[in-house]
Amino acid sequence: MPDRIPIEKKVLSENDRIAAGIRGELKRRRIFALNLVSSPGSGKTSLLEKTVAALHSELSIALVVGDVQTDNDAVRLMRAGARMVRPIITGGACHLDAAMVREAIGQLDLDGTELLLIENVGNLVCPSSYDLGEDMKVVVLSTTEGDDKPLKYPAMFRRSSVMIVNKIDLLGTSDFDIATMRDHALKINGDLTVFETSCRTGAGLEAWFGWLVEEVHRKKR
Amino acid sequence: MPDRIPIEKKVLSENDRIAAGIRGELKRRRIFALNLVSSPGSGKTSLLEKTVAALHSELSIALVVGDVQTDNDAVRLMRAGARMVRPIITGGACHLDAAMVREAIGQLDLDGTELLLIENVGNLVCPSSYDLGEDMKVVVLSTTEGDDKPLKYPAMFRRSSVMIVNKIDLLGTSDFDIATMRDHALKINGDLTVFETSCRTGAGLEAWFGWLVEEVHRKKR
Repeated sequence: MPDRIPIEKKVLSENDRIAAGIRGELKRRRIFALNLVSSPGSGKTSLLEKTVAALHSELSIALVVGDVQTDNDAVRLMRAGARMVRPIITGGACHLDAAMVREAIGQLDLDGTELLLIENVGNLVCPSSYDLGEDMKVVVLSTTEGDDKPLKYPAMFRRSSVMIVNKIDLLGTSDFDIATMRDHALKINGDLTVFETSCRTGAGLEAWFGWLVEEVHRKKR
Repeated sequence: MPDRIPIEKKVLSENDRIAAGIRGELKRRRIFALNLVSSPGSGKTSLLEKTVAALHSELSIALVVGDVQTDNDAVRLMRAGARMVRPIITGGACHLDAAMVREAIGQLDLDGTELLLIENVGNLVCPSSYDLGEDMKVVVLSTTEGDDKPLKYPAMFRRSSVMIVNKIDLLGTSDFDIATMRDHALKINGDLTVFETSCRTGAGLEAWFGWLVEEVHRKKR
């Protein structure tokens, strides 16, 4: 579709301009921001529920939660104890963009907020192109997907700083090989920080929480 | 992004024109064609491997296999016994379009072919907008995803004729409730034909194979 390229470029450069504005605002306020991306069904929302429940007494956390339809995820996160959640229903769009995030955080009271967690639409392709002003992208993958996912969706793994391999309680129920997957991911991006977690058993969550608290404090220095 | 709409419409109407051409060609040749869509990691390729292995002595099957990067899936399907497989590497694009499929099937020998299986890119959003000239879309969902997926990605379920709930051997390892998921899906599209399968244990596959053979013969009448 060659006639799509110029307008696509224009949309992306406008997006980058808005994202730079968000990044400046978050820097000024010393808020650490993550953009969580994954396939549908990797367990992003469960991971955020656990994270909010464990850390909300220690850190002031705001969440922006994107979905194509429904605000199910935002409701789940409020039940987990989150005080500030803005749902974004994209109405068909396959990714969040910076303008949607700017509008959502404009409706949050960011005074005193230390951590902003943005849950993107479940999609391993399109969200990789849209900067949302975050400090880092976190790609969440589950052990019930194929272990060749990093090779098949390389842009997402290249642009992420952290990879969380979730549902490790289900290792052994399929031919998913965690060492193979990790090798594939690190071949694409050797700088990935990797966590292996299970929201069901709690395995590996402490390491993720500890890293998160450390990064929040690093941003404040 | 309002300035994107006109060009998006133009791209889609050009896509529909090409898809209508493919549909005409397949009708003339009496080839039954399915477009398989799903999240990454639902098990589409495993399902196609089992389907090819079970039916290739009975039916003449051609496959077109889309991926963002790598031809891993095409290689797997050739190992399963498929004689005619064309990979499409979209190079970043998040869906197949009709022009890609037209080019791929132009490289296949369709004489005598009875069944064309098109495996789309793993993505529950974008592929729903692109007609590929198929008779039906088949949405594959796995029991390790959330049971609210039909509500969160309604367009895909509305535009599909068949839903395959895969990995039923993993029921009980999470809080996924198959009755809830089926209710959600049928509320969005009451005409869905539903299969429940496990490629690991083989459960439910015979019903899917039987339906497929029946539809192939119906197209020939």
